[in-house]
Amino acid sequence: MQEIIKRLVQKNDQKIVLLVMDGVGGLPKEKGGKTELETARTPNLDSLASESECGLHLPIDYGITPGSAPGHLALFGYRPTDYNIGRGVVAAMGIGFPMQAGDVAARVNFASRDDQGNVTDRRAGRIPTERCAELCDLLSSIRVPGVEIFLKPVMDYRAVVVFRGQGLSDHVADTDPQAVGVKSLDPQATSEEGKKTAEIAAAFIKQALELLKDQHPANCLLTRGFAELPHIPDMQELFGLHPLALAVYPDYKGVSRLVGMDVVEGLKDLEHQARALRENWDQYDYFFIHHKYTDSRGEDGNFDAKVAEIEKVDGFLPRIIEQKPDVLIVTGDHSTPAVMKSHSHHPIPFLINAANSRPDGVQKFGERACAAGLWGIIPGPILMRLALAYAGKLAKYGA
Amino acid sequence: MQEIIKRLVQKNDQKIVLLVMDGVGGLPKEKGGKTELETARTPNLDSLASESECGLHLPIDYGITPGSAPGHLALFGYRPTDYNIGRGVVAAMGIGFPMQAGDVAARVNFASRDDQGNVTDRRAGRIPTERCAELCDLLSSIRVPGVEIFLKPVMDYRAVVVFRGQGLSDHVADTDPQAVGVKSLDPQATSEEGKKTAEIAAAFIKQALELLKDQHPANCLLTRGFAELPHIPDMQELFGLHPLALAVYPDYKGVSRLVGMDVVEGLKDLEHQARALRENWDQYDYFFIHHKYTDSRGEDGNFDAKVAEIEKVDGFLPRIIEQKPDVLIVTGDHSTPAVMKSHSHHPIPFLINAANSRPDGVQKFGERACAAGLWGIIPGPILMRLALAYAGKLAKYGA
Repeated sequence: MQEIIKRLVQKNDQKIVLLVMDGVGGLPKEKGGKTELETARTPNLDSLASESECGLHLPIDYGITPGSAPGHLALFGYRPTDYNIGRGVVAAMGIGFPMQAGDVAARVNFASRDDQGNVTDRRAGRIPTERCAELCDLLSSIRVPGVEIFLKPVMDYRAVVVFRGQGLSDHVADTDPQAVGVKSLDPQATSEEGKKTAEIAAAFIKQALELLKDQHPANCLLTRGFAELPHIPDMQELFGLHPLALAVYPDYKGVSRLVGMDVVEGLKDLEHQARALRENWDQYDYFFIHHKYTDSRGEDGNFDAKVAEIEKVDGFLPRIIEQKPDVLIVTGDHSTPAVMKSHSHHPIPFLINAANSRPDGVQKFGERACAAGLWGIIPGPILMRLALAYAGKLAKYGA
Repeated sequence: MQEIIKRLVQKNDQKIVLLVMDGVGGLPKEKGGKTELETARTPNLDSLASESECGLHLPIDYGITPGSAPGHLALFGYRPTDYNIGRGVVAAMGIGFPMQAGDVAARVNFASRDDQGNVTDRRAGRIPTERCAELCDLLSSIRVPGVEIFLKPVMDYRAVVVFRGQGLSDHVADTDPQAVGVKSLDPQATSEEGKKTAEIAAAFIKQALELLKDQHPANCLLTRGFAELPHIPDMQELFGLHPLALAVYPDYKGVSRLVGMDVVEGLKDLEHQARALRENWDQYDYFFIHHKYTDSRGEDGNFDAKVAEIEKVDGFLPRIIEQKPDVLIVTGDHSTPAVMKSHSHHPIPFLINAANSRPDGVQKFGERACAAGLWGIIPGPILMRLALAYAGKLAKYGA
C-alpha cells in the first residue's frame, strides 16, 4: 500500500492537526467503573466527538504494548515494525544532534556509585540540566583512537553519546544494570559485529569514570540503547506533507525529526504550543502537538492526576479549533492505565474531525464510546491515511 | 509478527485457561429467533462476560468453515494455513503414537462389505473399541517389504495405520468411497512422489482383506487422510508456555500434542476434567479444556440438546473460576449451527477475562452480545496473543 499511497498523494493547502495525549487510553480503578478518560469532564472533546468519526486504534498489533517511539511512528503513518529505532537515536535526534549514517548513539545516565563501585542512584540525585551540561564539558577531553565522540546533555541527569567512525555497530548491550546495589555492567558485544564498538565504549567509560571520580553524586555513568540511525523515508516523500512538531519533551522531537518534521524549540507547555501553532499556521500543512503528562501521571499510578491532565488538554482544545484545521485527529500513542502504572496493549480511542466526516452517533470521547464508533478497531498507521483522505490529499484509485 | 512475539515473550507464573465449547457458535431455529447459545440459561457465563472483554473470532478467515484441527490450531495461536495437518496425523497423535518425521499415517475405518465386494456399512455396525483392538492384533502379522507397519485402535470402529520407511509420501488418495453400495477404492498416488506409498498401502490392504474375510461385520477396511507429520514449532518455543490439554476425545489430544502440549489421559467427562485441572494446577501455566458435545449435538441437528450441553458447561464454569486463573478465555473452535447439522463459517463468540480487561458493556455471552463487544471480529490466533498480553507475558515493543 505504501507505494500506492505515494502515487495517489496530491498536494493542496488543507491543514491537518494531530493532537496526541500521550498514554491517554486507560482502565477503571475497579471493575465496572470508568476509565480516566471516561471520568474526566471534557465538554470540548465530547462536543468535537459528536461531530467526528470515532474508533480505537492499535499502533503495532493486537496484544502488543507500544514503546513511545513505535507508538508515534504509527501515528505518523509508518508501520512501526518496518523500522528499528533505538533509544540512543531518539535521544540524539531529540536534542537536534545531526546524526549521520554509520553513527552509533547511546543514552547516558549520570549516576552515583559507592567506594566499592556499586550503583547507589541510577539518576545521580536527579542533577539539573545545567550540571549535566557541565559534566558533558568535563568529559569532552576524552579521546579514543579511531572515533570521534560527542557527549551532549539532554535533560536533568540524562545525556547522549554519539560515536562516529568506520565499522561501528549497535550490537552492544546496555551497561545500565537497571538496579542499585550492584556494579554497572561492561559494554558487551551482542554479536561479532559489535566487538569494535564495545571496545570503544569500554575505553570511553573507563576514561569517564576517572574524570568523574570526584563529582559525587554524578561520579558514574550508565549507557543503554546503543543504536544506529535507521533509514526512514520522510513525510514529505511519502505523504507530500510539510510537517511541524510542537512538542515539549526531547524524545518526541527526536521521533519527529526522524520522519522529517521541522521542530519548534523552546516550548514549555500547552500555552507555548498554542502560540507556536498560531505563529506557524501559514508555513506548514501538518502539525503534531504532543502532551506528555497524561502518560506521566498514568506511569505514576495517579488516576486523578491523569484525569486532571486530560481536562487540561480539553481546555486547550479550543485553541486548536480556532485555527480551523481542515482535519483534526485527537488520540494517544498507547494506553497507560493508572492502575497498571505502565504502557499497555489496550486499543486507544481516537476521533477524526473534518468537513466530510460521517456522523456515527458517538457523543462522548471515551474508550467505550469510541468502541461503538464508525471505525471499530484499526491499525494505528491508518489514521494518517484517513487524515490525507479527509484533507483531499489522496487522488482516486483507478479509472 | 511471529518472530516479534517470540522475542517479546517473557515468562512469569501467571496462568491461562482456554475453555473450548466445540462448535458453540450457532443460528436461530427460525429467522428472528435466538441461537443455541442465546437460548441457553447461562448465569455463570453471563456474569463472567459482564466483567470481560468480548468479541467474535474467525479461526481461518472470512467465509471459511474450519475443520477441527485448523480450528484448534488457531485457538492455540497458530495461523492454520501455515500448517497442513492431515487426518491420519491427528488420529495417530490422538492415541499418543510416537510419529517420526517421514512416517505416513492414515485413518482406518473397519467396515462391512458383501460378497460382491460392495461396502454395506462404512462403520462395521459401530463395533466397540475392544473388538477394534482384537482386529488390529489380528492384522499385526501383515508384512510389506521395505516398511514397518503399525496398526492401532482409536475408538469404536476407528483405527490408525502408520507406515515407516524410506521415501514415503502422503500423496495418496482415500480408499473410503464415502458411500455404501459401491466398492472401496484402490489407493491411488496423487503425484509421482506418492507412487511407492500407494503400492505399499495396496499391499497392506490386500493382506488385510484376506485376514478379515471371516470377521463380518468387520470384514473390510477403508483408509483416508494419508498424512505426514508436519513440523510445527511448539508452544514452549513460540510462547514460552508450559501447556496441558484436558480433552476427552482422541483427536483433540492429537492436535494438542502436535503443538507440544502435555495431555492427561483417561478423562471421561467435565467432572474428570475439573479434577485434573485442580491436580495439575501448579505444574503448568496454560490449560486447554475441551468439551466435545456442543459440536456433536449441533452435528446431530438437535438444537435443544446443544442448548443443554452449553448449560452443562455453564454449570462447570465455577470449577474453573475457583482455581483463580489470571486469564480465562471461553470460546469455540468453529460454529456448528444445529439447523445446518455441520460446521459453518460464522464467527464465534469469545470472552477474555483478566484483572486488566477493559469493560465493554456486554452483559451476556451470546453471538449478538459479543458482536457489540470491544474487539469486534478478530482472527482466531489473536486470542493467544491477547492471553499472553493480559498475563503479562509480552514485553513492551520498542524504546
